[in-house]
Amino acid sequence: MTSRTSSASAPATPLRLGIAGLGTVGAGVIRLLRANADLLRARAGRPIEVVAVSARDKTRDRGVDLAGLRWYEDARELVTDPDVDVVVELIGGAEGTARAVVEQALAAGKPVVTANKALVALHGSALAQLSATHNAPLLFEAAVAGGIPAIKTVREGLAGDRLLRVGGILNGTCNYILTVMRETGKDFATVLKDAQDLGYAEADPSTDIDGLDAAHKLTILAGLAFGQPVEFSSVHVEGIRRIGAEDLSFARALGYRIRLLGLAHMTECGLQARVTPCLVPQHSPLAQVDGVFNAVVAEGEFVGRIMIEGRGAGAGPTASAVTADLIDIARGHTIAVWGVQASAGLPLRAAPITLGHGAFYLRLAVEDRPGVIADITAVLRDCGVSLRSMLQHPAETDDAPYVPLVLVTHQTSEAAMQEAVTRIDALSVVTDSPVMIRIETA
Amino acid sequence: MTSRTSSASAPATPLRLGIAGLGTVGAGVIRLLRANADLLRARAGRPIEVVAVSARDKTRDRGVDLAGLRWYEDARELVTDPDVDVVVELIGGAEGTARAVVEQALAAGKPVVTANKALVALHGSALAQLSATHNAPLLFEAAVAGGIPAIKTVREGLAGDRLLRVGGILNGTCNYILTVMRETGKDFATVLKDAQDLGYAEADPSTDIDGLDAAHKLTILAGLAFGQPVEFSSVHVEGIRRIGAEDLSFARALGYRIRLLGLAHMTECGLQARVTPCLVPQHSPLAQVDGVFNAVVAEGEFVGRIMIEGRGAGAGPTASAVTADLIDIARGHTIAVWGVQASAGLPLRAAPITLGHGAFYLRLAVEDRPGVIADITAVLRDCGVSLRSMLQHPAETDDAPYVPLVLVTHQTSEAAMQEAVTRIDALSVVTDSPVMIRIETA
Repeated sequence: MTSRTSSASAPATPLRLGIAGLGTVGAGVIRLLRANADLLRARAGRPIEVVAVSARDKTRDRGVDLAGLRWYEDARELVTDPDVDVVVELIGGAEGTARAVVEQALAAGKPVVTANKALVALHGSALAQLSATHNAPLLFEAAVAGGIPAIKTVREGLAGDRLLRVGGILNGTCNYILTVMRETGKDFATVLKDAQDLGYAEADPSTDIDGLDAAHKLTILAGLAFGQPVEFSSVHVEGIRRIGAEDLSFARALGYRIRLLGLAHMTECGLQARVTPCLVPQHSPLAQVDGVFNAVVAEGEFVGRIMIEGRGAGAGPTASAVTADLIDIARGHTIAVWGVQASAGLPLRAAPITLGHGAFYLRLAVEDRPGVIADITAVLRDCGVSLRSMLQHPAETDDAPYVPLVLVTHQTSEAAMQEAVTRIDALSVVTDSPVMIRIETA
Repeated sequence: MTSRTSSASAPATPLRLGIAGLGTVGAGVIRLLRANADLLRARAGRPIEVVAVSARDKTRDRGVDLAGLRWYEDARELVTDPDVDVVVELIGGAEGTARAVVEQALAAGKPVVTANKALVALHGSALAQLSATHNAPLLFEAAVAGGIPAIKTVREGLAGDRLLRVGGILNGTCNYILTVMRETGKDFATVLKDAQDLGYAEADPSTDIDGLDAAHKLTILAGLAFGQPVEFSSVHVEGIRRIGAEDLSFARALGYRIRLLGLAHMTECGLQARVTPCLVPQHSPLAQVDGVFNAVVAEGEFVGRIMIEGRGAGAGPTASAVTADLIDIARGHTIAVWGVQASAGLPLRAAPITLGHGAFYLRLAVEDRPGVIADITAVLRDCGVSLRSMLQHPAETDDAPYVPLVLVTHQTSEAAMQEAVTRIDALSVVTDSPVMIRIETA
């Protein structure tokens, strides 16, 4: 069977690529393919060559020489080029040209490699069917956690085991912001601004900081782990906008760090998938992953817990992941989108987040007068939520209108906690919307 | 291409296994294959079934029902069973029956899955040739770091990149011993004894604690990372027997932890591969990996640094890795042993460790009298080794025959350091052989 990877006698036919999208990742892929040409030829058993590219502006300097490559202004024309064996989609976005290019290539029976997390998360079920119908592989290692081979790990490396849980730190921008907030004590808005100036956050940062980017990646990981597409809309998503500098400092005092985690696990009622800020114990593996790094966690019945960390974004790591997919195609190692041929079309049943359980951190802004704590703890008691600890910092000045009060609960149901938070929010002594953060043991 | 993974119309032919070796791992594989039968059938596109087993003692209770399986006392006969499509070798050991079974199966064109690190490390070059000649894949995910998909990560997940360095914490027994020594302050012999009582160390612990097991794994990882087999004898190996309780406490005082690391990197003079105790900064990722866990690190030009951690041993994790290989075979995803078809027979050129560079920790037992430090620092100066810091703890009692003296050097050549240690060892004021530990920045 190893002879499939290359033939010693016959001259090897090149795998010819058409690259749609020449942003930093597209240019990075061309750079990597050229820098490592001999190595890739040896590993793939045949040369991997770019023959055509597509982007809007031909005159822009991308730092790579495009001489000798066929140029298409319309990426859809690149797909129909008979010399293009594999389409590499690096345009981005769940709709528009990116979607059209991928669908058209698959429908024409051409293998597709993409880094497009939104596209796969939102249209993964239909794309899997298209891929199966036309016998055209769709690979997307670069769509989750950049250079980390997260997809290969879940879909192949752990394919022998029944996975119980998958997820991790899936957005480097949020992890960077939370890390700097902890290290400097600065507030969210200031650190976001710094991150934008440094290029770690987009001018419009909402996809990252509101948790959508992490939710795209979690949708994909969960589909792979459980062998069926996941409805993106079934993922519960919270971002990090409401995390304050005081939350980082309370978390530290309680022995935790704050991470934006995407986590999916299977329950008797279906899949629970959510992206939320979480408190993780300060000595846990996920607490050690600082800055722009990503970490993917998978837990299986037999294998236990595996964690991979590395660079989740950037031209180099993303190009590495795209190229690994290309080598798989050259080696003939292709696989059904969700790892299981038969299930391409059936989305996983989702369980509402209110069926979840956990412990919670709750930060309230309350009036600084007798009886307030009694009012709040009475609500918690009425909702069946049991307290583990309480922290109160004195007001910074005598005339401060409110003081922060932090409550940590024992394990309770998400539904009870949501009810309690709604009722607490309605108390007149509570002066601002509560900040609720889930506590994860790992 | 995805149709290779399964055919929707034709009934799927089972992949029939013969398992040679029914220790805890062999029994674990049977248990996993049964527990996950439906899942594996969906992922592999065909059922995976055990049809024959081989072990010495048929009467032993292994906790799995062997009824209906063909029994062979001689594993070599199992190989020739025409109903066995794939041979799973779980006997262990680089020679004897294990080697004969693997060679015989490959020569007969039968795919082999093995967890045998010593066999692959010592005979990887010849086995790769046998595999290529007879078109019989040889897969060994379970041979390195148990349940961690380290081999798939290096050989496939990072196949797009040029790797600069590979290695990590490859022996759970040593990591457990070093962790407990740090946490309890107990000495090596006491902790080893405790580990043996708990089943974390073998009755004869030398393969683990002298670094050979880690060196087997490093030999394999380096071969995969650099695409050519590595001569096991070219790996420099030191174990942890000479690490004392005082080294753990000095390391802590200096801001480090001690880990047994296997590390391989390519230099202009060839491959540098070594297994040695190392000081790693206490906040570095490898310093966080405690107890029996393993961690594999790979560093590439484009991808940067990736680290995977998980359970490096045990029936469950090992069975998970063996089964992932079986699914790859069922999916038709097989690959040349070293990832590159052409290089099966050419071992990598190795660079002697004396060509290495690094910073060093040196612990000496010296007489407690004036002039001693001058004598020692004169030797270092003469050898061109520059000191970064020095720690001395006072003698515990006034009449103690010696005191410990710890020196930390700046970056220097391994050759200069070895010469310095030899000369220092020869000084009359130095009362015991020096303990030299390399310092790794990550």
